Amino acid sequence: MRHLRLSLLAASLLATGMVSAANAADKGTVISQQAVQTAEQLRDKAMADNTGYKIVESLTTEVGARLAGGPNDQRARDWAIAKFKALGFDKVYVEPVTYPLWERRSEHAEIVAPFPQPLALLALGYSAGTPKGGITAEVVKFDGLAALKAADPATVKGKIVFVTFHMQRAKDGRDYGIGSPVRVQGPVIASAKGAAGFLLRSAGTDANSRTPHTGVTGFRDPKDAIPAAALSNPDADQLERVLAYGKPVSIKLDLDCGVSGSYTGANVIGEITGKKYPDQVIAIGGHLDSWDPGTGAIDDGAGVAIAMAAGKLIGDLPQRPDRTIRVIAFANEEMGLWGGRGYADQHAADVGKHQLGTESDFGAGKVWRMTASVKPSARAAIEQIAKVLAPIGVAYDAKRRGGGGSDLSQMHAKGMAALTLTQDGTDYFDYHHTANDTLDKVHPKELAQNVAVYAAFSYMAAQADGDFGSAPDAFKNDGAGD
Amino acid sequence: MRHLRLSLLAASLLATGMVSAANAADKGTVISQQAVQTAEQLRDKAMADNTGYKIVESLTTEVGARLAGGPNDQRARDWAIAKFKALGFDKVYVEPVTYPLWERRSEHAEIVAPFPQPLALLALGYSAGTPKGGITAEVVKFDGLAALKAADPATVKGKIVFVTFHMQRAKDGRDYGIGSPVRVQGPVIASAKGAAGFLLRSAGTDANSRTPHTGVTGFRDPKDAIPAAALSNPDADQLERVLAYGKPVSIKLDLDCGVSGSYTGANVIGEITGKKYPDQVIAIGGHLDSWDPGTGAIDDGAGVAIAMAAGKLIGDLPQRPDRTIRVIAFANEEMGLWGGRGYADQHAADVGKHQLGTESDFGAGKVWRMTASVKPSARAAIEQIAKVLAPIGVAYDAKRRGGGGSDLSQMHAKGMAALTLTQDGTDYFDYHHTANDTLDKVHPKELAQNVAVYAAFSYMAAQADGDFGSAPDAFKNDGAGD
Repeated sequence: MRHLRLSLLAASLLATGMVSAANAADKGTVISQQAVQTAEQLRDKAMADNTGYKIVESLTTEVGARLAGGPNDQRARDWAIAKFKALGFDKVYVEPVTYPLWERRSEHAEIVAPFPQPLALLALGYSAGTPKGGITAEVVKFDGLAALKAADPATVKGKIVFVTFHMQRAKDGRDYGIGSPVRVQGPVIASAKGAAGFLLRSAGTDANSRTPHTGVTGFRDPKDAIPAAALSNPDADQLERVLAYGKPVSIKLDLDCGVSGSYTGANVIGEITGKKYPDQVIAIGGHLDSWDPGTGAIDDGAGVAIAMAAGKLIGDLPQRPDRTIRVIAFANEEMGLWGGRGYADQHAADVGKHQLGTESDFGAGKVWRMTASVKPSARAAIEQIAKVLAPIGVAYDAKRRGGGGSDLSQMHAKGMAALTLTQDGTDYFDYHHTANDTLDKVHPKELAQNVAVYAAFSYMAAQADGDFGSAPDAFKNDGAGD
Repeated sequence: MRHLRLSLLAASLLATGMVSAANAADKGTVISQQAVQTAEQLRDKAMADNTGYKIVESLTTEVGARLAGGPNDQRARDWAIAKFKALGFDKVYVEPVTYPLWERRSEHAEIVAPFPQPLALLALGYSAGTPKGGITAEVVKFDGLAALKAADPATVKGKIVFVTFHMQRAKDGRDYGIGSPVRVQGPVIASAKGAAGFLLRSAGTDANSRTPHTGVTGFRDPKDAIPAAALSNPDADQLERVLAYGKPVSIKLDLDCGVSGSYTGANVIGEITGKKYPDQVIAIGGHLDSWDPGTGAIDDGAGVAIAMAAGKLIGDLPQRPDRTIRVIAFANEEMGLWGGRGYADQHAADVGKHQLGTESDFGAGKVWRMTASVKPSARAAIEQIAKVLAPIGVAYDAKRRGGGGSDLSQMHAKGMAALTLTQDGTDYFDYHHTANDTLDKVHPKELAQNVAVYAAFSYMAAQADGDFGSAPDAFKNDGAGD
């Protein structure tokens, strides 16, 4: 299928006398000097431009929090459609995505004994609610997921499991690789062992902030769900101190939340239509939904803004690019990549038409590393891109593979050539999924650097003579990661 | 009255053959070399001791938030009585203090138009509640108190006044001198002009935290009170952004709070009894109440702990000091120095028996400056104290006057000789009156330095040959401040 597709394409391109994608598979994919120059101009223009910041400011000010399926879901989609149009995108459309509707209504917790006091917490995505009036149960503490996994169910049954893992800051946010599974798998394991409820120390690096970090759990069937919530770091400290007195500690957990039916939202898509190969797309984007305590500025208003602004800058060029720049504002990333999976399902047959793609979903810090999953003969073109990005601080790591980002990882899994443009996430997990995810965390100059990266790479991929190897299952065994 | 009192005292002391306070008024107050040495030992022991930290840990863990008159008021007093006893204080007693009972039940606000979204806020002390279901009104913004004062009442009437002043961090916390009046006077002025409600940008330096700073208003008669609350800094930013669109902005304010009758709490006092002059006291302390969103660690668990620990270390000496070390855990400082005013009223006649005093109520940062309001002939003794404190980072500023701290400023106003021991408040207003006032903000080594300062100066004052000039109205015109 892959070779047939390429051969047909080659025949058609050769007939027009142009360097063909298939041809490039032999000669290697290259980017013309003219395209490189235009990309450099785009990069420099973007570095001094505030379009990206204006977009994230508009989204977070006019819409604010955007919990998938919540009261602002439709408002956010309306905003995205209007914004794409205002930015001059040629084609703006939506692709429906249906998912379970999880609602947060209220949450409250308190230590009942031995030292009565309230605790700051947030219910987790797909958490069950408690019966009205709450539940009160004894707390049993585990230092990590391994200890919970190893626990005798008899020690957990009927209790509130509390897992405490301290995330530390890192540029690549590596501790989220430990903290996230505590939140996702922890409640499922606790439920299976008969726990009455689940609490974790927030998967966040803000050790001194009373802002809990919400996020999704691994509950997929509401029947398996138990009440599950995150304590802020200082509240987790407090609970540990109270436990250290050695007396039984009981907590009252009162969560009003849960899944009620399903909801149909949509991925909102804007395109700058390619003039030579309109059906070949560079896929970039962010996710339009956010968690509800903040206004979703860094997660992921920034990503939406970066991709929209990159598309707009390319659209402002005197001529349309050769290939289409497709900017996708994904639905419901937060509760399980619903938008990304929906997109991949709907576009599976078109994977070969996805020239290259990646999503921005790691905040608003500067891009400092580029990695790629492309066919070997496109590595030279990636190096050309790297050369354009190097002056603005992006290092190309040829040894690592690209993954396409959160939602677009699903399309990469189907065979789309993909980059990973790693942002500086040193402070990302201070704010991620908290009430503190607000516009003041976005630094205009850092955001502009991201727009420069996305505009330059997208344009070069759009103008490339040749492809990057997208085809069904093309990157199945490439060990793509991060 | 003052001279008569001193003469009588002089006569009695001369009769016993000891160096008298009145005598010292001629010769100058001095501290013996032996007392200096013991103070140095106390200082060095305190620097390596964690008694202070253990006390604030105990208070914030076992009691937590301590809103004056709230559910923890009695628990906090019980804690203080038990803690004084456990620390070996000779005499532990309470002195009742009665004040209006202000209760916080719930608070909620949202922008209704043009961009609906919730706002993070906290009602202010003595704020009125709104009618059930809230009030909705248009917002009118002022950049500072002067602009509000100058406003035509017609522009304010029926509206929600919003005053925005950005506090900046400073070692001496000087911007609180602007931010605090916005919170205290702003609501009173807005009410007088017919405003429906009052909001301020929090008087806090945490520009990026969704934790509003509560605090007291100047409402003294509930009849004058209107609903008044503080927005977090990012919420104030957001409101300013929304206002910048130039459309009318309306907010729904729903506060359930208010004054309901009065409450009788108490100052809790512990004493290390002086062996020579048991009725002469060195008065130190902190305030036992706190605002309710946090656990009152830096405001003012730290102050209570510093004074208690200093007293305990002096009590651990082989001999009782010459004068009594009186540690006062004041009631309801937060809503208007009720404990301090109560103490000053009850002890007005004893002002001359207050050898020297000061309260710790500016967090848990290191003491970096000492100033004093004492009689001229006691300056040499203050310099002796300064010499003992210099090695641990305390600079003596002889040009400034001491004020005694928050509650004890009231006793200083009556004539008590007083120090001010200024702490490093660089980050104090990041956390002050917020949910983030929790134990993790207290650094044990910095707290220990405070204990060293209080133990050393208290002991030296207790052992001084001579007094520091306390007498009715002794410092009326000394320009005491900070």
